[in-house]
Amino acid sequence: MTDLSFFHTPGSVAVIGASDNPDKIGGRPIEYMTTLGYRGALYPVNPSRPMIQGLPAFGSVDSLPEVPEVAVVAVPGQAAVDAVETCARLGVRGCVVMSSGFGETPDPDGRRCQEEMLRAARRTGMRIVGPNTQGLASFGSGAVLGFSTMFTELPPADGPVAVVSQSGAMCSVPYGVLRRRGVGVRYAHATGNDADVSAAELAAAVVADPAVRLLVLYLEDIRHPAAVEELADVATSRGVPVVALAGGRSAGGRRAAASHTGALANETRVVDAFFERLGIWRARHSADLTAAVDLYLQGAAQPRSPAAGEQGLAIVSNSGAICVLAADAAADHDLDLATFTTHSRERLGAALPAFAATANPVDVTAALMTDSSLFGKVLPVIGADPGVDACVVGIPVAGRGYDVATIAADVRAFAQDSGVPVAVAIAQPDVGAVFRDAGLAVFDDEGAAVAALAQVRRHGEIAAAAPGRGRLSTRRPGASVHTLDEADSLAALAALGLATVAATRCADADAAVAAFDALGGVPVVVKGCTAAITHKSDLGLVRLGLTDAEEVARAARDVVDIMARNGVAEGAVLVAPMVRGALEVMVGAHLDPSFGPVVVLGAGGTGVEAVPDVRVLLPPFTAADARAAVASLRMAPLLGPVRGDAAADVDAWVDMAVRLGREMVRPGSRIASVDANPVMLHRGVGAGAVAVDALVLVDGGAEL
Amino acid sequence: MTDLSFFHTPGSVAVIGASDNPDKIGGRPIEYMTTLGYRGALYPVNPSRPMIQGLPAFGSVDSLPEVPEVAVVAVPGQAAVDAVETCARLGVRGCVVMSSGFGETPDPDGRRCQEEMLRAARRTGMRIVGPNTQGLASFGSGAVLGFSTMFTELPPADGPVAVVSQSGAMCSVPYGVLRRRGVGVRYAHATGNDADVSAAELAAAVVADPAVRLLVLYLEDIRHPAAVEELADVATSRGVPVVALAGGRSAGGRRAAASHTGALANETRVVDAFFERLGIWRARHSADLTAAVDLYLQGAAQPRSPAAGEQGLAIVSNSGAICVLAADAAADHDLDLATFTTHSRERLGAALPAFAATANPVDVTAALMTDSSLFGKVLPVIGADPGVDACVVGIPVAGRGYDVATIAADVRAFAQDSGVPVAVAIAQPDVGAVFRDAGLAVFDDEGAAVAALAQVRRHGEIAAAAPGRGRLSTRRPGASVHTLDEADSLAALAALGLATVAATRCADADAAVAAFDALGGVPVVVKGCTAAITHKSDLGLVRLGLTDAEEVARAARDVVDIMARNGVAEGAVLVAPMVRGALEVMVGAHLDPSFGPVVVLGAGGTGVEAVPDVRVLLPPFTAADARAAVASLRMAPLLGPVRGDAAADVDAWVDMAVRLGREMVRPGSRIASVDANPVMLHRGVGAGAVAVDALVLVDGGAEL
Repeated sequence: MTDLSFFHTPGSVAVIGASDNPDKIGGRPIEYMTTLGYRGALYPVNPSRPMIQGLPAFGSVDSLPEVPEVAVVAVPGQAAVDAVETCARLGVRGCVVMSSGFGETPDPDGRRCQEEMLRAARRTGMRIVGPNTQGLASFGSGAVLGFSTMFTELPPADGPVAVVSQSGAMCSVPYGVLRRRGVGVRYAHATGNDADVSAAELAAAVVADPAVRLLVLYLEDIRHPAAVEELADVATSRGVPVVALAGGRSAGGRRAAASHTGALANETRVVDAFFERLGIWRARHSADLTAAVDLYLQGAAQPRSPAAGEQGLAIVSNSGAICVLAADAAADHDLDLATFTTHSRERLGAALPAFAATANPVDVTAALMTDSSLFGKVLPVIGADPGVDACVVGIPVAGRGYDVATIAADVRAFAQDSGVPVAVAIAQPDVGAVFRDAGLAVFDDEGAAVAALAQVRRHGEIAAAAPGRGRLSTRRPGASVHTLDEADSLAALAALGLATVAATRCADADAAVAAFDALGGVPVVVKGCTAAITHKSDLGLVRLGLTDAEEVARAARDVVDIMARNGVAEGAVLVAPMVRGALEVMVGAHLDPSFGPVVVLGAGGTGVEAVPDVRVLLPPFTAADARAAVASLRMAPLLGPVRGDAAADVDAWVDMAVRLGREMVRPGSRIASVDANPVMLHRGVGAGAVAVDALVLVDGGAEL
Repeated sequence: MTDLSFFHTPGSVAVIGASDNPDKIGGRPIEYMTTLGYRGALYPVNPSRPMIQGLPAFGSVDSLPEVPEVAVVAVPGQAAVDAVETCARLGVRGCVVMSSGFGETPDPDGRRCQEEMLRAARRTGMRIVGPNTQGLASFGSGAVLGFSTMFTELPPADGPVAVVSQSGAMCSVPYGVLRRRGVGVRYAHATGNDADVSAAELAAAVVADPAVRLLVLYLEDIRHPAAVEELADVATSRGVPVVALAGGRSAGGRRAAASHTGALANETRVVDAFFERLGIWRARHSADLTAAVDLYLQGAAQPRSPAAGEQGLAIVSNSGAICVLAADAAADHDLDLATFTTHSRERLGAALPAFAATANPVDVTAALMTDSSLFGKVLPVIGADPGVDACVVGIPVAGRGYDVATIAADVRAFAQDSGVPVAVAIAQPDVGAVFRDAGLAVFDDEGAAVAALAQVRRHGEIAAAAPGRGRLSTRRPGASVHTLDEADSLAALAALGLATVAATRCADADAAVAAFDALGGVPVVVKGCTAAITHKSDLGLVRLGLTDAEEVARAARDVVDIMARNGVAEGAVLVAPMVRGALEVMVGAHLDPSFGPVVVLGAGGTGVEAVPDVRVLLPPFTAADARAAVASLRMAPLLGPVRGDAAADVDAWVDMAVRLGREMVRPGSRIASVDANPVMLHRGVGAGAVAVDALVLVDGGAEL
């Protein structure tokens, strides 16, 4: 990992384009560093004034008493290029170029300027953050190399959270949410155009800081997955959870991203798979970046095995309605409710008002109003129950007449003694503040509390599975591909060890009948076999369920005619036995421009495009990874034993995916894309899975 | 509709069990009414004190100077029963029984006491709210017949919103959220056990008040759908949107509800369908009850035709990232983005900084910091674009250096001039307050803003479709049902005008062969036909694709043998032609204990239980309603024209659902349940749909 720590603890900083006005972009870094305890040398550069915000100013970077370790560039256009070139020549280690109008615009001049800055930096090994960046802020050292308005609105405080973002706003917004909630923020970095240093590379440096315990990350594109992999390695080794928001999940969002930072946002399912394999939680909306932060900081997302199982959520409230609604929310998030032991229920019965239910959820009833000790009696019982691995405490109504401090202390003691994650749902901000001051994770409502618990639990599971996965392959799509016909495609899969239907390529109707006879008279399918026509069934090139020689001959002749009419003179005829009575699934693979090899598995058949039910895996992955992906499909319940039928042979399907994944990352592989659909998946141990149709593309213009 | 207005504007109120301590349950109503402007006569009843909170107290209800119009009962157990009986005898119009320990407990004494109160009330026509209720609060009149802590925590203010809830907490929580946001609340009613007056009945009275413009409703069960229908009628005629949360969507939530108010929470899909047909929005979590309230109060949920179409959401922000994320959120909610006209784009190009994109979303860029007039230039163009029907304005960062007041005024002018719903996403509370004070709908983040716009839009659509739907049938499940065998089931469907496969019931193998011959030799299915065995394929009673007489005879003999071995001596054999090459769908119907007739349609085949993709309709409904339900299925994209094949004949399927719905509400119908699965749905106009398997249950113990 490259050393970027000089951006965090620079010995000296020059601000090029420094302003005496602290509201100007060139004035903000000066104001922040002079007021937030930065101890290094600070050099305002501005040829037109002797003093800037009380500091002596300099006419140029050349005239400083020393070569600054880092420079902040706040001058526009060509002046910025000149400043960067001077810094590089002098031996400055890093520049933060805040100015805009470069690579993010369609203006060729701006793009050229960005290229020139990059070239200058690369000549001497200087690093550039930006251009078009709000800049970096390190509150541990007071080195604020940026201009975010938010540090004026909400005073910084050093703490356990780091925010790293391509976007300035998506740096400022999480910073603001965290600070308003009283959480300390150590880094608030925005990287802009990522021309040199990427958000991920900087995030890796940030996460290496032992004072950081949670990383909040916003990305608009992932041009260099390897940088994210390095970041994830550091985070995993330090046990730092990473919550990432990658904008551009939708087509509309991707269009917007393209005109924002010029980002080519990545395919959503691929990004999902990428983050999951690295143990990174993918947020969907900006609010999700910080929603569970209190639980994270309590260590609730420590890697946990999904096999922990058999435990569940306990719900306690002084409102029956909140018990009901929290249980509903748990179901929404696939969280099981804990089943209390008989012993626990007896103890709850003794503690609770007569007639209160002793099962989970526990409604201590409005009696809390007259007996504030109720939580103190009930919670230790729940904490001691072996079936409880998380707890929601809902207190929708408290205030005058309630001993809020005692209740908060009881909940706090429960959280500490039991060690299980506890989320407190409190609608009244003043009541919530008492609980927050007691060190508890407080949420506005039961829905948010349950969602956060579900997130840290699931995050702990993916984090547990992440270590030991290899790096992604560097294979990328080639310049050209060659399409194999169906017979060759099936043969290519067979060569990889995938079971394929016994298809025979026949030149004419006679050969087709011979193939039919050789199959022993079972019902067959007759298809046109040519790489030149893709959607064969639309043209009548697929004839199913043929049971006698005459039908086969007629179908073969038809198919040859149709191909000829569609300009395919040398099309062959494929004869294969019908495979029936199996589940139709699919497995595929392709090369993503950013992430390289991608394997897809899911429900198969003709509906796969219209109603997709697929999961993506990035190789290398294990059979266990593939099995987990299968288990998360919407169709998964169909794979189990149903109505007396045996479970589907998922292992056979998983094996296909593993073999494809292995091939896609094999050095020298020429497979560019595979679409095996349908794969007929049989029921019963060892019953197998067989690809009955396939389309394979290979790199380059020649045969495999 | 019964008159319940005396609960809202009582001329006189007695509080039985009045307390001098305003923190006691019997003290709160006195304190609230004396401080919140109640102008009627207020009579504390307490035999042990001459004065209560400065008012003369009375020893019993009998000794008051007049018969009070309403009494609040705060004494427990048998004393409450006595008080209610006295009130009824005296001619009190309504009692609010706050005391607990009655029908909500498993205690037979408590249940008996509740029954006695009810009997006493019914003898004289007195109405009871509760028992076990937090009580009612009418801030228009100051009549607070309840003890909610929240009115102490947050001072009431009369306003356009009414909250009605079975649960006390779920009355107090929305009240608190609304008041903290500065929204006035006219009614905050909790009804408790709903022994007499139900939450829905009270809500109908509330919605009839011309001052109410939004109803927030929490229900734990819907024992009397007719009361909700009446409420919806009033709300629809007055144009008042209703947002309802029905707890117990999950199995865990239903268990919790049963031990809370003794509620038997209803089947989720049925409740969804019930609310939708009435134009009521179903919230999922407590926060959803109030999330979109500002947009509602601006009239954004006025009934709108889904055919309005061809319009979409505009997104404007000073942050490119918020543009990206709002577009992603719009896709999550199936909201289209507006496409601006060329004219608009030219005008935007003139208004925006050079190189800023002029397409939707519009990123005015960080230039807003130096030019606060940017929104004022851009928004009128967007407001004039005919393709825009809603707008998100995202301002993630503002504050010092920004002219926030000008920006807020510009957004306000845009909202007023354009008339489209505008949701402003602002992360900084102090900045948000400026916009809220300007009368705008403000949200914490882009995700919440887009979700609220999507909600009011969809709510407007279901509200537009609601009027004119008839009342639900009062048919309910009978005491016993009789199961028809497959042949009789198919015949019963055919009698209703549903197309069914041409199945022949055969006594033996010879008859089966004759039936096969009569079908002209097409492939057939041979099945065991008996009502005594349900899962026939598990036992080998279904033989598919038989193509010659010998196969048919052998299958028929097998089937008869298997039935005999399973104790069915008189089972017949069913012979029917195979129906292939169609989509497998299903249609069904049954009688719900609370809602009566229910029609179900969805994806068919063996996966329907494991991976359900179904929608519920409550008759009476129209073909348009059924078509809308089909269009919302996950499988819907498969029904369109795919790969050259024609669209499926959805009309034929819809017609089956309509016929079933009509039968289920027909007076005298004996159909208790129908499960037609699969229905083979063919592609092509008029291609039809045919039920190939069916199970029909009829009321009573005899044949149909």
